[in-house]
Amino acid sequence: MSGFNHKKYRPVAPIKIANRTWPDQVITQAPNWCSVDLRDGNQALIEPMSVSQKQMLFALLVKVGFKEIEVGFPAASQPDFDFVRWLIEEDQVPEDVTLQVLTQARPELIERTFESLKGARRAVVHVYNSTSTVQREQVFKLDKQGIIDIAVSGASKVKALAEQHPETEWVYQYSPESFTGTELDFAVEVVNAVTEVWQPTAEKPAIINLPATVEMATPNVFADQIEWFCNHVKRRDAIIVSVHTHNDRGCGVAAAELAVMAGAQRVEGTMLGNGERTGNMDIVTMAMNLYSQGIDPELYLADMDEIVRVVKTCTQLPVHPRHPYAGELVYTAFSGSHQDAIKKCLDLYDPEQPWEVAYLPIDPTDLGRSYQEVIRVNSQSGKGGIAYTLEQQYGVQLPRWLQIAFSGVVQRQAELNGGEVPAEAMWQLFNDVYIDHQAPVRLGAFELKRTTHDHVHAKLLVDDQTIEISGDGHGVMDAFANALQSRYGFQINIQEYSEHALKEGSDADAVSYLQVNIEGQHYYGVAIHEDIVTASLNAILSATNQFMVEKQQAVA
Amino acid sequence: MSGFNHKKYRPVAPIKIANRTWPDQVITQAPNWCSVDLRDGNQALIEPMSVSQKQMLFALLVKVGFKEIEVGFPAASQPDFDFVRWLIEEDQVPEDVTLQVLTQARPELIERTFESLKGARRAVVHVYNSTSTVQREQVFKLDKQGIIDIAVSGASKVKALAEQHPETEWVYQYSPESFTGTELDFAVEVVNAVTEVWQPTAEKPAIINLPATVEMATPNVFADQIEWFCNHVKRRDAIIVSVHTHNDRGCGVAAAELAVMAGAQRVEGTMLGNGERTGNMDIVTMAMNLYSQGIDPELYLADMDEIVRVVKTCTQLPVHPRHPYAGELVYTAFSGSHQDAIKKCLDLYDPEQPWEVAYLPIDPTDLGRSYQEVIRVNSQSGKGGIAYTLEQQYGVQLPRWLQIAFSGVVQRQAELNGGEVPAEAMWQLFNDVYIDHQAPVRLGAFELKRTTHDHVHAKLLVDDQTIEISGDGHGVMDAFANALQSRYGFQINIQEYSEHALKEGSDADAVSYLQVNIEGQHYYGVAIHEDIVTASLNAILSATNQFMVEKQQAVA
Repeated sequence: MSGFNHKKYRPVAPIKIANRTWPDQVITQAPNWCSVDLRDGNQALIEPMSVSQKQMLFALLVKVGFKEIEVGFPAASQPDFDFVRWLIEEDQVPEDVTLQVLTQARPELIERTFESLKGARRAVVHVYNSTSTVQREQVFKLDKQGIIDIAVSGASKVKALAEQHPETEWVYQYSPESFTGTELDFAVEVVNAVTEVWQPTAEKPAIINLPATVEMATPNVFADQIEWFCNHVKRRDAIIVSVHTHNDRGCGVAAAELAVMAGAQRVEGTMLGNGERTGNMDIVTMAMNLYSQGIDPELYLADMDEIVRVVKTCTQLPVHPRHPYAGELVYTAFSGSHQDAIKKCLDLYDPEQPWEVAYLPIDPTDLGRSYQEVIRVNSQSGKGGIAYTLEQQYGVQLPRWLQIAFSGVVQRQAELNGGEVPAEAMWQLFNDVYIDHQAPVRLGAFELKRTTHDHVHAKLLVDDQTIEISGDGHGVMDAFANALQSRYGFQINIQEYSEHALKEGSDADAVSYLQVNIEGQHYYGVAIHEDIVTASLNAILSATNQFMVEKQQAVA
Repeated sequence: MSGFNHKKYRPVAPIKIANRTWPDQVITQAPNWCSVDLRDGNQALIEPMSVSQKQMLFALLVKVGFKEIEVGFPAASQPDFDFVRWLIEEDQVPEDVTLQVLTQARPELIERTFESLKGARRAVVHVYNSTSTVQREQVFKLDKQGIIDIAVSGASKVKALAEQHPETEWVYQYSPESFTGTELDFAVEVVNAVTEVWQPTAEKPAIINLPATVEMATPNVFADQIEWFCNHVKRRDAIIVSVHTHNDRGCGVAAAELAVMAGAQRVEGTMLGNGERTGNMDIVTMAMNLYSQGIDPELYLADMDEIVRVVKTCTQLPVHPRHPYAGELVYTAFSGSHQDAIKKCLDLYDPEQPWEVAYLPIDPTDLGRSYQEVIRVNSQSGKGGIAYTLEQQYGVQLPRWLQIAFSGVVQRQAELNGGEVPAEAMWQLFNDVYIDHQAPVRLGAFELKRTTHDHVHAKLLVDDQTIEISGDGHGVMDAFANALQSRYGFQINIQEYSEHALKEGSDADAVSYLQVNIEGQHYYGVAIHEDIVTASLNAILSATNQFMVEKQQAVA
């Protein structure tokens, strides 16, 4: 039974549900959103977020408009505890935003959780224990009553501590963790036992969060589970049914959407889907899905590039170029017939009428993307494509700062020509702009001495003459820049450089990339040579020659 | 009405369907899969695939077990035409694999399409035209009859040409493109008109492919569309209903799954979801979803790392670390309670029993991933995490070949310690392994002369003595390696090197990374110095010293 063998798996049993109603429902308003970026998301990172990353992400979540934000698991993590204290003590939580924190249903952890929240205006205490068959039998080795006892004693502890601290407005939340692996009737039984303790009311409801801790079936099965749960749980009017889906089967957003159709009123998730394993369901996608149907998402997602930037900075994870609504390529049509259809529709588009453009479910300008991105494609394939092409075809690995500089050059060229820039043309352009600046000054023979510092002596070929320069410095490049400065009077500051072998072996060519600042202007020089020192000096000269030619032209 | 404003969008109308049956269905067998990687996928790339990339991807698709492969749009693209010819003329198509090609429903394109297929044993000719309201009204400016006429004349042309070439076994396929934006009754009307021409039978069925060209609604709506279509189309027994979903709302897999429950027999998609905009639905995810339910996916996906490698190489697109089943992080539990539960379940796991492990929907070893990856996490955060940490904390940007080498070192260290490797420990390890090899030989002063070649003269400090070495070569590193060889007799082949500045400015430190081969063994040397030449020579010495110490120890 080892290796690739489907027979080792059992199917999830379908839900026996009579007269299901969710397939006839249509979502007409946004659910209550709860961001779990700073808890579930943060727990799933190779390097958990630093304090400054947490602060940056919290600020984004507030700006986007979340009203409930799960900020950590303070009883399990000192950094989380400290962050919650910082938020409260430094008064970082806007009036209309409620902090939420997670805790296991264990008395000492619940106590520590309440300590972390001291002084909060309003807070959701989110208590959970695992209820699935696997967890009961294999992990906790408890029967059903044992699991109920954990939940009830946790709920009681939460209630007791909340009553001791009436200065905070407390909201109770319970999750039967691993709900998707739990028998439905048992999930209802556990939840009923918890709400029996809490006695929520329609005016002061409790949140019951039903996690697809692991996504285990097609999303309709999750919707069936939610509908069944809503139909059978006690005190339905006094609880807010929340869902928290993961993406193990690639259907986390679908599961949350169908769950809302099935009765869920609240959705937990993360920005762009960070979270354990395959991630949490992506609130950006679900909110934009509502938006594209004319429904107010109750989140402000217009500045998508900023959202992407902050999320990437905080999670240190990439955003895929095909990520719905957010990826670099999602508004780009590469096929000629798609481009043609989009153009025709855009030409006819009347801003007073509903959006209706072939191949574009939403108007990219809503999210700060441009129509140009959509239609001009190979002329604007971006720095990734340019860098990739040059590496594949010519072996050069442009450093990031040069990718950025060169992509602007390629784009302007493409705009001039109105068409594609093929690899050979791109390489020619790269040579023209960065490499082939051999006048007025070329490098001849040189000598280098290294003792406590570096001394360089070089012959330069200027027109028909040979001149000699010398300089000292920390490193050969510094010494050579100083030598040029002694001769010509202008100062050359080397700002960035990078080098690598073009192919394997010590006798392979080296390529050297430089960015210099001469009299306040940036110049970029690139040189290829069998010797890395010669490549570096030639790169300096390529940049310097650009400056000198400009200066001559300015004088002439 | 500009900017972020949901009011500019209209909701998709729900489908009026009586007694829908799909929510009660459970998928019990794999659909017919059709890969469109080489057509839809290839059309959506910044740089379309080269011939060798197409060949590599085709070989993967065959190996994985696809029996229908759409290989291009030969009438619209000369490279696609040539590739189809190569496949046929070079006899690259296995007996049980059928080529499929796409064409618009235009007579001259259909003719060219048949030319491309000359000599094929069996082929699917996939003809399409756009049928949606937007396309009719804004792009083609035709009424419904005009659209039907295009489809019928295309179908007739296909039939006529097929009958002229009975040496090939032809399969007809028609797509009402932009089906999700087409009135259902009109889609049925167009398809009925096409099958009226083709007269398919149960023995020789036609394929009717219903594309979610743009994903426009929650996936249940697509399932309703498919069920409605299946209930209303003529000659249902003589057609294979196929779906082709895109991922604009992040629900492309869900839509295909629910569509199969609703009656679709065939699914088009791509490996890992490449395709226009947000991509096609990902066949790997859907197939593995079936697998995890104990259903034979009829695709062999065991060698997932190889699949990822080939797809990345061919598409030049990344695979997200959280991509279901395939991403680097999807079997990794970072949370302590998850790790603990997984460990307990694995300890109890009986290979003769069905898989049941908390937090792991499938056994990672099925796909060539290890349990170690799952449980030891921060100790094994992989080369990405290691490289990221070193860059953030210490400014070094390890080249890929050194990331790979060093991640093995970190892993062994973590295994020895059984815990996390924090950044400082990782940096110390990096120094110990690559940098701090100053014995037996250290670099003193040196001189370098460049004329037609490079000459280096250097003082070396060996124990208490100073010795002098000289060498010539192509480039300073080659010259220095030759100088060492003259002195010590062993040959040093420099295989990889890379350098960069640690921070801005010509007087910043440079870091040099090297991989050398000495007497058949790889050694890695790294050095940091204000001078790039000194850094390079020290890196060579760091590697050489490792070799010399080993040799001394072997002798002693």
